[in-house]
Amino acid sequence: MAKQKKGQKAEDGGLLGQLRMPSGPVDLTKYDTRATPGFAGSKDDGKAAMEGLGAEVSDWQERLFAEGRKGGQRSILLVLQGMDTSGKGGVIRHGAGLMDPQGLKITSFKAPTPAEKRRGFLWRIRQAVPSHGLIGIFDRSHYEDVLIARVRNLVAPSVWDKRYDQINEFEAELADSGVTILKCYLHISADEQKVRLQERLDNPTKHWKYNPGDVDEREFWPDYMDAYHAAIERCGTEKAPWYVVPSDRKWYRNWAITTMLLETLKSLDPQWPEADFDVATEKKRLAAT
Amino acid sequence: MAKQKKGQKAEDGGLLGQLRMPSGPVDLTKYDTRATPGFAGSKDDGKAAMEGLGAEVSDWQERLFAEGRKGGQRSILLVLQGMDTSGKGGVIRHGAGLMDPQGLKITSFKAPTPAEKRRGFLWRIRQAVPSHGLIGIFDRSHYEDVLIARVRNLVAPSVWDKRYDQINEFEAELADSGVTILKCYLHISADEQKVRLQERLDNPTKHWKYNPGDVDEREFWPDYMDAYHAAIERCGTEKAPWYVVPSDRKWYRNWAITTMLLETLKSLDPQWPEADFDVATEKKRLAAT
Repeated sequence: MAKQKKGQKAEDGGLLGQLRMPSGPVDLTKYDTRATPGFAGSKDDGKAAMEGLGAEVSDWQERLFAEGRKGGQRSILLVLQGMDTSGKGGVIRHGAGLMDPQGLKITSFKAPTPAEKRRGFLWRIRQAVPSHGLIGIFDRSHYEDVLIARVRNLVAPSVWDKRYDQINEFEAELADSGVTILKCYLHISADEQKVRLQERLDNPTKHWKYNPGDVDEREFWPDYMDAYHAAIERCGTEKAPWYVVPSDRKWYRNWAITTMLLETLKSLDPQWPEADFDVATEKKRLAAT
Repeated sequence: MAKQKKGQKAEDGGLLGQLRMPSGPVDLTKYDTRATPGFAGSKDDGKAAMEGLGAEVSDWQERLFAEGRKGGQRSILLVLQGMDTSGKGGVIRHGAGLMDPQGLKITSFKAPTPAEKRRGFLWRIRQAVPSHGLIGIFDRSHYEDVLIARVRNLVAPSVWDKRYDQINEFEAELADSGVTILKCYLHISADEQKVRLQERLDNPTKHWKYNPGDVDEREFWPDYMDAYHAAIERCGTEKAPWYVVPSDRKWYRNWAITTMLLETLKSLDPQWPEADFDVATEKKRLAAT
């Protein structure tokens, strides 16, 4: 059955094919943040579809995990980027929450510490690469080093400008070592961000998520869009493509990224490892205890 | 409402009170591995009760997480110990799977690597202590250093004998620094283990979980029980008590440990952090963008 679905996917490219950014100049304003590509139903349908993915995605996740335990050298890295409130945490809670936490390696990157700053910007990223059999998830990533670092002049232009190539080399190395990289830009509108920040202010149980700096960053929205355009254009490679996920609708965002993970797992097609012992012998040994 | 439930728990001790091992000599043979203390219903009831815990436990988990983000210094450490197949992984999949993976720090301890062996046995354990606001889960732990290390003579008796005190000092230090420690022994019978190993041999999708060494270890069952008796007796402290969880019934084991986590979260009673900014000012600033 997995084989059959694989065939279907190969035919139509799946959701990965639909959301993948083509090479060439990038203009995010051309992509509707409220669109739901690949999904025809309502919000309720989307939530039901999401729940329906749980069993299948966790089954495939376990196969990948099992493969990694028995010598397999493959893993998946999901990179989540997007403006504040775009829902990186929500994807992890709802999407990753469908999976076995033992098979996940989740890393949330904040502003680098002084110790991290004294090393190259990829140093801390390398520590977080998922080992064999795991699904790694980055909540923000090395892309911050060509986003906020560029927009807010945290380093000189000559420094951030070199980073695009450094990122491409790093990601190619990862891909060659068995990591399938999925880079997702969670695409929200400035208006939707305003609504979400307002909700955080209105609801005392969400005050802890609100940071006055988020309002400061809103002033730099066009600069951030320019920086995303550059990052997606210069680092959208064959080995590590970028995907743009319309994210004004939370249910679509969660369904889409989980579906992309599922498609990725299926394309890797990990199989249950064969016994590395003689089953009949072991049955006898066990029976004798 | 949280306050009210706290009162009820204080009154009856909750499941934590029921499963907590009293001080003094330990004899695990006195505890029925198929018992379901604190739960009167059937397997189906147990599974339904487990599902029903999801929303509540993840709400409390988020409160603890939020507290940790805003200066709180508390965390929880769940230590899972038990014989092979006792279900440490199952508890994580089903129990931890109810929670937001962003708030979990799960560490699975295998046989120490050469680099780890060159350090004290607690070195790698300290790396895995959950930071503020997180729920840490150990799948095996420093207790292996007084279990397999003792039973299989991996170190001299004079070495493992000192470790009980070292563990107590370590755990007291953790407790004093804000870590609430829950040490759970997943109590299965040797017969139940045999059934579970047989299942792994009968089902090709479970062969990867089977290790011929597990049958070798079964011969040392009485020695392991002695080692558990010593560990529970010598390291069952006021600051870091041991709990014995009957685990022949998987549904009970999962429900019980999740319930104990929930009781622990409620007793910590983390509150949504208050705004560290002026809400009215921020609303005006946001509106102006």
